[in-house]
Amino acid sequence: MAPETKVNGINIDQLFSTIDLLKEKPELAKCKFRATNKWIDGAHSRATVKDFYGPGKEDTSRAPVSYDLDEPEVLLGTNHGSNPVEYLLVALSGCITTALVAHAAAKKIPVRGVESRFEGDIDLRGFLGMSEDVPVGYQEIRVYFKIDADISDEQKEDLVRMGVKYSPVANTIKSQTPLSVQLEK
Amino acid sequence: MAPETKVNGINIDQLFSTIDLLKEKPELAKCKFRATNKWIDGAHSRATVKDFYGPGKEDTSRAPVSYDLDEPEVLLGTNHGSNPVEYLLVALSGCITTALVAHAAAKKIPVRGVESRFEGDIDLRGFLGMSEDVPVGYQEIRVYFKIDADISDEQKEDLVRMGVKYSPVANTIKSQTPLSVQLEK
Repeated sequence: MAPETKVNGINIDQLFSTIDLLKEKPELAKCKFRATNKWIDGAHSRATVKDFYGPGKEDTSRAPVSYDLDEPEVLLGTNHGSNPVEYLLVALSGCITTALVAHAAAKKIPVRGVESRFEGDIDLRGFLGMSEDVPVGYQEIRVYFKIDADISDEQKEDLVRMGVKYSPVANTIKSQTPLSVQLEK
Repeated sequence: MAPETKVNGINIDQLFSTIDLLKEKPELAKCKFRATNKWIDGAHSRATVKDFYGPGKEDTSRAPVSYDLDEPEVLLGTNHGSNPVEYLLVALSGCITTALVAHAAAKKIPVRGVESRFEGDIDLRGFLGMSEDVPVGYQEIRVYFKIDADISDEQKEDLVRMGVKYSPVANTIKSQTPLSVQLEK
């Protein structure tokens, strides 16, 4: 048996055989990801991630992981965790990074290191309902990537573009993603 | 001195005095939130949240908090953490919850409990670049809230609507938020 081919820690044999499988059976590409949340007090809540659906079946094999969300005191919280808009940047950071590294692996471009910074602008008057003219969400998010690899700056810029293009979180943020919200009685 | 008025753990005296202050000095409403990320291996990266800007100054008082992001093995990862699209739901969950509870507090509606579930659909063919017709991001996110409070179902539905309307993360997801991405050389 040939040894597994790994580039950037990604098993590219598995990657390409997954692509072949999904060409034949596109229904296996459908995943559902989930989280639950329980309010604690004030701005403090606790989210939990455990099960998901995909590919083709429910997966309950992972242990649950919980995340505390809160606000710093200056923003009316009790500082028990990062705030929700910071978690959004955490999500975005991991997503572009993985997309970048995986697409580099698919092109057999080894990278030694990837570091990035994320910053977004919020105007608190939106959250506080003080003006309909002030956006409630991030007005803009700026992203800065550093890549350590033996490739040209142009190739690095290509990798960053692919990271954004194929990042599910970046695309969820950049497009108008439908949210359906219900009260359970 | 009068005691602080708290509803749902939110200091509503501080909330209303913040609103008064921001009416006079809207520049104090401008915040910048941040995260950094360092790729570890494969789909595994580590994000860190620490400083932010606002209101009116840099805040470096918080200790750094780190988050591991990865994918389960069935999605080509090594299972060192929740995946980026799950972190996005974590962010969304805390954000709608806080907005709901804070706006209930501002209306002096006490709530005993808030629980919620989040589920979103991803088609892996988008991430894998297999088809330009398949959305890369979440196709839809469904949200289900349960509120324990001595109010009517209609009032609970109002609270859920306000939670979404004033949630920065929900609005970032629902609208086309600009992402500016740069390579640092």
